[in-house]
Formats: sequence, C-alpha cells, structure tokens
Amino acid sequence: MSDLEATVAALAAKVAEMEDRLAIYQLLATYGPAVDSGLSGVTADLWSENGTYDWGMGKSEGSAAVGAMVEGDQHQGIIGGGSAHFLGTPHLDIHADRAVATGYSQLLLFDKEQQGFRVWRVAANRWELERTPQGWKVVKRVNRVLDGSEEARSLLRAGVERGTGSPLE
Amino acid sequence: MSDLEATVAALAAKVAEMEDRLAIYQLLATYGPAVDSGLSGVTADLWSENGTYDWGMGKSEGSAAVGAMVEGDQHQGIIGGGSAHFLGTPHLDIHADRAVATGYSQLLLFDKEQQGFRVWRVAANRWELERTPQGWKVVKRVNRVLDGSEEARSLLRAGVERGTGSPLE
Amino acid sequence: MSDLEATVAALAAKVAEMEDRLAIYQLLATYGPAVDSGLSGVTADLWSENGTYDWGMGKSEGSAAVGAMVEGDQHQGIIGGGSAHFLGTPHLDIHADRAVATGYSQLLLFDKEQQGFRVWRVAANRWELERTPQGWKVVKRVNRVLDGSEEARSLLRAGVERGTGSPLE
Repeated sequence: MSDLEATVAALAAKVAEMEDRLAIYQLLATYGPAVDSGLSGVTADLWSENGTYDWGMGKSEGSAAVGAMVEGDQHQGIIGGGSAHFLGTPHLDIHADRAVATGYSQLLLFDKEQQGFRVWRVAANRWELERTPQGWKVVKRVNRVLDGSEEARSLLRAGVERGTGSPLE
Repeated sequence: MSDLEATVAALAAKVAEMEDRLAIYQLLATYGPAVDSGLSGVTADLWSENGTYDWGMGKSEGSAAVGAMVEGDQHQGIIGGGSAHFLGTPHLDIHADRAVATGYSQLLLFDKEQQGFRVWRVAANRWELERTPQGWKVVKRVNRVLDGSEEARSLLRAGVERGTGSPLE
Repeated sequence: MSDLEATVAALAAKVAEMEDRLAIYQLLATYGPAVDSGLSGVTADLWSENGTYDWGMGKSEGSAAVGAMVEGDQHQGIIGGGSAHFLGTPHLDIHADRAVATGYSQLLLFDKEQQGFRVWRVAANRWELERTPQGWKVVKRVNRVLDGSEEARSLLRAGVERGTGSPLE
C-alpha cells in the first residue's frame, strides 16, 4: 500500500466512525417527534425486531410492542393533552457494530390552567444499539426516573465511567 | 478514474454531508444565545433575506423583521426578566441545497419569587433551510406550541414520517 | 503535490475539524452523567489540571477541586434527592488547539410531593477548552443563571457575536 493509500484508508475509518455518531444522534432525534405525533410505525422501526424498551413502570418486548405502546390509551392520552419527549445529546460509546448511548430524557406536559408546561418525568437513559443491514437499531432501552434512586444513578455511571470514551480521540 | 480516485471522491461526498449536518447543528445552537442576549443582527443573519418565522402568535417576514422582533418590547421584556430559548438536537433531512430540521424548543422564564424557572412554551419546530454562498440560511421556520393541537403534531409528523431519513445511512 | 494528494490533504483537514466538534459534544455529554451519578474522578478528568469552574455561587480551581465539589455535601444532597444536569447542544468556535463552547444548562430537581421535577437553575455557559495529549480538556468554565442579569447575557453574547462562526463553512 502506498503512503497515499494508507492515508486514505485512515481517513475512511475516521469518516465511518463519524457517520456512526451522527446516525445515532439522528436516530435519537427521530424518537421524540415520532412518539409525540403518534407515528407508531416509525417509532417501532427504530427498534430491532426483538429489541426491548423498559421504562421503569412497564416494558415493551419487541418492536411491535413498542409500536403498540404508542397506539395505546395511556400514550394517546398524553399526546392528546400536549407532550414533548425532549432528549439531551447523549454520550456515545461505539465499538464496531455495537453502541451504547447514555443520556437524559424529559417528558414535558402541557398544563392548560397555567398555560405553561410541567416537567413530569426526567429520566436517565441507556440505549443499546446494533448495526444492521437497515442501519442502527435499538436492541435495548432502559429508562429510570432520576428520583434519587441508586438504580438511575447506576445507569448513568455505567455509561461514562471510562470518561469521554470517544473512539475519535 | 483510478480506484483510489473513486475512493477519495466517495469520501469527499460523505464529508460534505457531515459538514452540512454539523453546520446546521451550529446554526441552531447560535439561535438561543443570540436571541437571549439581544443580538438582533446575528439573529437576523441566520435567516435568508426573505426568510420567514411563524411562531404561532405572529409572523416575521424577512430577516430584517426577525431582527426587529428581537429589538421589540415584548422580546426585550422577556430577556430582561431572564430567559432561555433552549433547543433540542433536531432530526435532519438534507437533500442537496435544501434541508429540513425538525425538533423542539423550550422557552424557560426566570421566576423571581420561586427563585427557579418555569417552562412557559414548549413547541414543535420545523426549520426549512437553504444553502447559500454565505452558508446555510433559514428560509422558513414554523413553531407550534405542543398544547394538544393537531397542528403541532402534524408539524412533527411531517419531519419524521420516513424515519431516521439520514442521507448518511 | 499531485492533485489527488492535495484533495486528500484538504479532506484530512475537514475530517480533523469535524472530529474536534464531535469530541467536544462528547465531552459535554459526559459531564451530566458523571456529576449526577457522583463520578468525581471522571468529572475532574474533563478539566485540565489547572482548569477552573466558576458557577456563580462559588468557584473550583483545578481539576482536583472540581472532583472535590462532586464529593461535597451540597452536591451529594442534590443527587441524593434526584437531579439532572441537562445541557443543550453548544455553539462551538474552534481555532487550532483552543475552543469555546457556548450554550445552556438546566438543573432539574425531583420534587417528591408533586411527583414531578422543578427547574431550579437555568444558566448561560461558557466552556473554554484546550487540546492536550489526552484530548480536549476544559481550562475554564463559567456559568451564570439567566435571571435577567447583564452578566449572563454578556456571556452568551461573547460566544456568538460573530454568528454561526463555524470553521466548517
């Protein structure tokens, strides 16, 4: 391999890593708009077929169950009243075809009387992802409300205990 | 074209797409600090000359009108009392020289009595952007408060109905 | 230098700039999970040895002092009750080995009685960073609560007065 070929190969590897990071940002940025507008199919499609979502008060097993949750009465009531599933930029740890995103979600609800919003749930989030022929998919998401419980803190700790952990550095 | 030239050309296309994504993240990250500090010129400059901003309770037509809004009494009252225009990471859909960013904004106001903040407006946001010789510019921004109205939900739905829609994947 | 070599060199420069942006996003995304889970070492390690953190009501000088703050009674009380240090995507200004990130932080606290969260502090943030052999490190962070004070607005203004200021555009 010539020097130039080696340079190009190294660049290609860096570009592939950055594409992964941006694709996962995009995936997470799809979640809120999908669930708040009731797009059950788009939401389900973020998960792998057997992917799970454990939100602390219940668990969906499989992407079809994730979609069914969006169509369910509880979720429809939430979005009918006015809601925003607002996520923060996650910490990412990517290794080949697997990734972990660690961060926060806020669930904000419209309060008609006050003509403002209340922050109902703020949760620690762990998203485990897998590269598939159809792009990155969620294989496991766990949320825990940050109510002082050790469980929520552990979930955050597990994601960042090695620091910035960026494969880019 | 040699194999190496073809590889470099493919890389260059990927790099250009990532630059677009990061430039749009940067543009949106400029908005809050500009409006909350009263920089009307910087705010106006995010829009194209004929760009519009429809925030549901009113509409600015043209970048000069966007700047005038920042200098107006209502906005000056808001920032004088203490405010944060806090945006989430948007979903991006980029096609050549046009892009749509779909996401959320929170408008937080300082509450002196409570020594805390209240969340006044949480809105669905659609930003339509265009590449210009001066970089990406907003040609149309529409906000709708997530108060349960179908209009706000439609706006989110339009942005993500095709899923992650990342040109990188 | 051949045309192809020049093309590759230009691409390499763009890739390096994007890596910097993503590494700083990652650094900031590490902060919240680290402080909310009590990882004092990981938090300290985000700062350079002599880096400072001035949060308006006090100041930590040096990364060891930042770590000690995390271990201190006040911080332990906050996270024991349930907290989220939620950051927005920052505006970035990068020049060679120095960078400034300008944005927002929210400190949300669990409210047991209301079974919800209150937004206690929303602050303007300025992070000054430096590239080191161990990656980007914080050399100075200043926070000011957005309570209407000119100081908080100045801090935001200083970060974005030149606009999107992206080295990528």
